[in-house]
Amino acid sequence: MNDTFLKVCRGEKVSYTPIWIMRQAGRYLPEYQEIRKRVDFLTLCKDPDLASEVTIQPVEILGVDAAILFSDILIPLEPMGIDLEFSEKIGPIINNPVRDKASFDNLLSYNPDDELDFVKKTIKNLKSNLKVPLIGFSGAPFTLATYLIEGGTSKNFINTKKLMYGDRVLFEEIMAKLTIMIHDYLLMQIKAGVDAIQIFDTWLGIVCPEYILKYILKYVNKLIDNIKSNSNVPIIYFPFNCSYILKQISGVSADVIGIDWRIYIDNASELMNNQKTIQGNLDPCVLFATRDIIKQNVEMVLNRGVACKGHIFNLGHGILPETPVDNVKYFVDIVHKLSQKGD
Amino acid sequence: MNDTFLKVCRGEKVSYTPIWIMRQAGRYLPEYQEIRKRVDFLTLCKDPDLASEVTIQPVEILGVDAAILFSDILIPLEPMGIDLEFSEKIGPIINNPVRDKASFDNLLSYNPDDELDFVKKTIKNLKSNLKVPLIGFSGAPFTLATYLIEGGTSKNFINTKKLMYGDRVLFEEIMAKLTIMIHDYLLMQIKAGVDAIQIFDTWLGIVCPEYILKYILKYVNKLIDNIKSNSNVPIIYFPFNCSYILKQISGVSADVIGIDWRIYIDNASELMNNQKTIQGNLDPCVLFATRDIIKQNVEMVLNRGVACKGHIFNLGHGILPETPVDNVKYFVDIVHKLSQKGD
Repeated sequence: MNDTFLKVCRGEKVSYTPIWIMRQAGRYLPEYQEIRKRVDFLTLCKDPDLASEVTIQPVEILGVDAAILFSDILIPLEPMGIDLEFSEKIGPIINNPVRDKASFDNLLSYNPDDELDFVKKTIKNLKSNLKVPLIGFSGAPFTLATYLIEGGTSKNFINTKKLMYGDRVLFEEIMAKLTIMIHDYLLMQIKAGVDAIQIFDTWLGIVCPEYILKYILKYVNKLIDNIKSNSNVPIIYFPFNCSYILKQISGVSADVIGIDWRIYIDNASELMNNQKTIQGNLDPCVLFATRDIIKQNVEMVLNRGVACKGHIFNLGHGILPETPVDNVKYFVDIVHKLSQKGD
Repeated sequence: MNDTFLKVCRGEKVSYTPIWIMRQAGRYLPEYQEIRKRVDFLTLCKDPDLASEVTIQPVEILGVDAAILFSDILIPLEPMGIDLEFSEKIGPIINNPVRDKASFDNLLSYNPDDELDFVKKTIKNLKSNLKVPLIGFSGAPFTLATYLIEGGTSKNFINTKKLMYGDRVLFEEIMAKLTIMIHDYLLMQIKAGVDAIQIFDTWLGIVCPEYILKYILKYVNKLIDNIKSNSNVPIIYFPFNCSYILKQISGVSADVIGIDWRIYIDNASELMNNQKTIQGNLDPCVLFATRDIIKQNVEMVLNRGVACKGHIFNLGHGILPETPVDNVKYFVDIVHKLSQKGD
């Protein structure tokens, strides 16, 4: 197995900078679109054969150094009694959002081994076919809480913040319950065979530092520490749009911190005392430009990335649906080529 | 005139912390909604009597220390030949966005004295009625460029970035033309009588530091330096969601830097060597909570704000439509009360 990605997660030296791409299995790929013509998004997530097929697509087409389980961060909410649908236009919709004690008390606990059996099957399927490491994932407690409370994506997250500021007891009860659920879900993925874990905290960046530090990061810490006491797979924590608070985030015991494009990667590493491997951080929109511009921006990130304890190349956010596939192939190749260490 | 706000802009000592609220004339006020029942948004912006009336409303109802001209950042784009409409559901729509050289060449130059006469009239109207300073404003070159290019608000700003990464010559031509237009528009406002200027850079935070530093901040600098050479009204620059890059932004010659709620106000001030008055920075969602929570958060911001060269209290973003008016009144009162210096 190509273990370059895992070595960099662990801070070991490697001969080139490994790369994978958030949402690398997705709509920009015609091969993915072909499958989506036949099945809807949720069906695809729950079918181990099809989910495996789209997970493998970018590894074969692009030559990335890791695969990531094809799924969605909202999948583990369903067995809690959440009525989830995906609208092509709006995105995810939760028809029974949790905004009060009564709806919180209705949330179910469940065993992911039973209720999310299809995830386990997909992972086992993939492990016998992949020649690169497989990344499992989950949303972080706060990010899942926003979907649960808002009932979908949001512009201003008013419901989440009404609860966070207005009923902190209930807010923390939600965070605590989600932390346990996510822990069990990730351990199930690890037992099934994933080689690393990424925890997406996509919406942490909407919160003021006071509340992040007092009421949110402690659940991230609890989650990661508990996983670490049961397993030694590398853990990537990706708090989107949080450059301003990376110093405090560096206390989290994840092996790798993912960053978006809003900060120079060497500055991010410095804020964390160069103690973490950094994953990132090209603006996904660069992939719409010419090869010259892509190369120039990749070179800049690679040169700055040398300062980090370790560097896993990635975009600063998920790849966008209409990104030209040829540019994506060029991107992966040029990262490999430019980062190759001479003999 | 109550000149506390202006004194703090200039870094002078005052006996309490002045406060105004972004979007303080707006939908959360029943008195504003009454007027909007009769006229649409664009008509309201262009009617000097009605625009004056809604500008004064929050001064009388809340007792804030400054008024801000009721208008919209897209108003000065219309005389450039932009077909602008406001949809209640979608927000602003520009029906002829600028994405290529041909549509850029079609943009008109104009004299704001003639084409935006209604703004001048509103300002003169207000100056004879207001007992607090009047803030004029404009969008910053980049933020206006995003609307011009996207044709409205956007999620990923793909068109803007396609141009920024893909055709930097045209991107910079747009930035340069907008910089001149904004300069002329703001000077017209100053000549008409505004006491201070705020430049909103609402979307700067979507850009990577490399491009902000090389291709965007120079236009902000040119704009502010040119205004400063013609006038001495204080200038507030508000780059939203840019906490990670405040150190570099502190080079801008604005008197005041506005910040959102994503960073502690004393940390922001420190990044700028405590050389700027800071405006901010309560999360607008705090105003949905109880008085206790509002007070607690105001106290925290005030206490940290003491470290700044000067502090103008504000929210970290515009006040939200459904904010309870009683809470807003309490907010203004408690800022005044808690910040009152003893004898």
